[in-house]
Amino acid sequence: MLLNRSERKFPRVIVIGGGFGGIEVARRLKDKEVEVLLIDRNNFHTFQPLLYQVATGTLASDSIAFPLRKMFKSQSNFRFRMAEVLRIDKDAKVVHTSVGEFDYDYLVVASGATSNFFGNANVEKYSLGMKSIQEAQNIRSYVLQNLEEAVLRKNADDRERFMNFVVVGGGPTGVELSGAIAEIQLHMLKKDYPELSKHEMNVYLVEGLGEVLAALSDKSSRDAKRYLEELGVKVILNTVVKDYDGLTVTLSNGDQIPTKTVIWGAGVKGQFPEGINPELLQRGNRIKTNGQCQIIDMPGVYAIGDVAATVTEKTPNGLPGVAPVAQQQGKYVADHILSILKNENNTEDFKYFDKGSMATVGRNRAVVDMGKFHLKGFIAWCTWMFVHLLSIAGFRNQLVTFINWTVKFFTKNSGIRLIIHKYHRPDPLMKTTEETEQV
Amino acid sequence: MLLNRSERKFPRVIVIGGGFGGIEVARRLKDKEVEVLLIDRNNFHTFQPLLYQVATGTLASDSIAFPLRKMFKSQSNFRFRMAEVLRIDKDAKVVHTSVGEFDYDYLVVASGATSNFFGNANVEKYSLGMKSIQEAQNIRSYVLQNLEEAVLRKNADDRERFMNFVVVGGGPTGVELSGAIAEIQLHMLKKDYPELSKHEMNVYLVEGLGEVLAALSDKSSRDAKRYLEELGVKVILNTVVKDYDGLTVTLSNGDQIPTKTVIWGAGVKGQFPEGINPELLQRGNRIKTNGQCQIIDMPGVYAIGDVAATVTEKTPNGLPGVAPVAQQQGKYVADHILSILKNENNTEDFKYFDKGSMATVGRNRAVVDMGKFHLKGFIAWCTWMFVHLLSIAGFRNQLVTFINWTVKFFTKNSGIRLIIHKYHRPDPLMKTTEETEQV
Repeated sequence: MLLNRSERKFPRVIVIGGGFGGIEVARRLKDKEVEVLLIDRNNFHTFQPLLYQVATGTLASDSIAFPLRKMFKSQSNFRFRMAEVLRIDKDAKVVHTSVGEFDYDYLVVASGATSNFFGNANVEKYSLGMKSIQEAQNIRSYVLQNLEEAVLRKNADDRERFMNFVVVGGGPTGVELSGAIAEIQLHMLKKDYPELSKHEMNVYLVEGLGEVLAALSDKSSRDAKRYLEELGVKVILNTVVKDYDGLTVTLSNGDQIPTKTVIWGAGVKGQFPEGINPELLQRGNRIKTNGQCQIIDMPGVYAIGDVAATVTEKTPNGLPGVAPVAQQQGKYVADHILSILKNENNTEDFKYFDKGSMATVGRNRAVVDMGKFHLKGFIAWCTWMFVHLLSIAGFRNQLVTFINWTVKFFTKNSGIRLIIHKYHRPDPLMKTTEETEQV
Repeated sequence: MLLNRSERKFPRVIVIGGGFGGIEVARRLKDKEVEVLLIDRNNFHTFQPLLYQVATGTLASDSIAFPLRKMFKSQSNFRFRMAEVLRIDKDAKVVHTSVGEFDYDYLVVASGATSNFFGNANVEKYSLGMKSIQEAQNIRSYVLQNLEEAVLRKNADDRERFMNFVVVGGGPTGVELSGAIAEIQLHMLKKDYPELSKHEMNVYLVEGLGEVLAALSDKSSRDAKRYLEELGVKVILNTVVKDYDGLTVTLSNGDQIPTKTVIWGAGVKGQFPEGINPELLQRGNRIKTNGQCQIIDMPGVYAIGDVAATVTEKTPNGLPGVAPVAQQQGKYVADHILSILKNENNTEDFKYFDKGSMATVGRNRAVVDMGKFHLKGFIAWCTWMFVHLLSIAGFRNQLVTFINWTVKFFTKNSGIRLIIHKYHRPDPLMKTTEETEQV
């Protein structure tokens, strides 16, 4: 059992969230004179960069999720609670959770981000997010459910909205996801669904800026767009989604696309428990911290990763919401806490070392930026694959993922196209009469 | 699209259910002058013999499920509909489904079996079945959820019911599942849950007869019982479950075990659409057929596998509900339909060729009966592994399963212990106050 503050030998560091940032804090504190308590609503870490492969059936959920208890099984100062953190009480130095209260000496808020629909309730209601394993599974099920529905329709007009897939947001998530759905169209549709034509299926990628992968170099953005178009993805730039009623999506350029499937990758916002001063919130609902990742008016409390905007002179808007930032901040914060415990006065700000960015498009092409160095095509894809394989937690997951990728590379048609849990989306209009078939 | 009876060139064979029997019928009819329409509520085939490994986290669901459309992608006379079959109209020769009506010339009912709680509503309400991927996932989640709950309890009495696991039924399902849960206790508990003691965890196997694996030889039954006991499973024979209120299970010998987890493997019953003459139903809700697997008063309609009782002089109670029976009946029925289409008068009864039975206990021991020939221990486990690997559909699944087993063999602690979908069991009494922790 956990001990009260007065009974404990060592100070307690509570970490909220077992993402890239949270696990790095916990790891770095191994064998140190602190107690680490990690709290997450899930009992596993999610390797988010490969969520789109779960959504499109290349990988099983189990390959990109890693049980947190197992990850820390040899770390004797580590404790875990599967719980929702409801509220931080900064005065009592206590977090209130769905399974009780826990007091802390140091607290790291690493609770990540969720989809940001920018207040559009219709879009939020009818479109699918892709920020968790559960959401990725929903996408997998729902794409297949819609193809099953299309098979039941006698004429092309009725099939249209079941065979149009709209991905919103041209960042890495949207690019990788739309590319992978286009590969389903190219390599699977005719084989698995002989009654459907691949010419009836359309994959759209809608991006508000003038290029995809805007965070990468112009060269990579151009290459990625070309790869997408070669796969058949219809890339629509300088355009945002105005509305979506569950049947037809309306774009800012006035176009309308009939579709049952809108996948949202156009923005994220920080998610965190109650108890944070609202005045600290920056764009995208991120919590403002100082250069040392501390939340200014909460003594002993840090925020890192997607939920945090680390504001310094050089980074007035914070840092990008990517895994390496969270990981490096995790290491920094763990070291910062240890330096305080040693009464060292560490006032050096966190510095992000940008190793580069990459995104994959389809089965064997990618773009990679490392400083001024660019890679594209197959060699970039090999780099992407290598980096991601090395980053996945656990030998078993690495091996299984490698095999899945190898089989997919050689067969083009290896997908795990299972509808294990049907996704029941709120449905605005469709009548059951239309959904039946008589033969 | 599917064509009406009058428009079709070839007669249509509808197969209800994509289990071992159903897929065998469809396969055998490849390139024949018939149209095959397979209907299943899931879009995948489930390799049921390994469900217990999904339930205990050795394998991902995706490794033992195979998309039906993919399985038949090179069979041009194959069509699939994901639907629930509601009713058979034997006079109109039509099946009514959740997605419309389909007429048939021949119909094969291969809809399998579900858990049989023998009318005990309490047990049905609170215990977990293990007949589908979804149910196996629920077991996986629920076992882990209970261990997470146990961690929150300060004293041993409160932890007890979260750490007692009761498996009912000493057939292969119950034996394999209880053995695998005992291995979690032996190899995982202390590492992942340092706050829990493995001595507090108990795995019970309750069986109504005087031995486990009653369908196997006495020798194998004795060996399996010994293996289970060596793993720490408490085997309770000659005893049935009288009642279960969600908190405490009451046995026929008067004993009571406090437990939140009762897993039901004590019996199955046939499940099938409406439209079957109730007078034909045999013990276990199985549909009586003649020796040629035909339902007597339904022309052109066959029943095979777990849902059927193939009654002949030699088999007055039908055949055992195992995969080889369903597979052999599937082949037989496909051939029987083809012989009718060729106007051959095939009156030879179906004959089951029993190749033997096997069950595995724990990580590297099993029992195998082949006629008078017995295997046990490690060599039996290798046989079991080899036979099951060869039977799993799909190269990718075989490879991934082989790797998972190999890693598990060497590490003893490879489980995929994820709670992706929490299982919400009806909960009779527990109060939230008891379920929280204050530290």
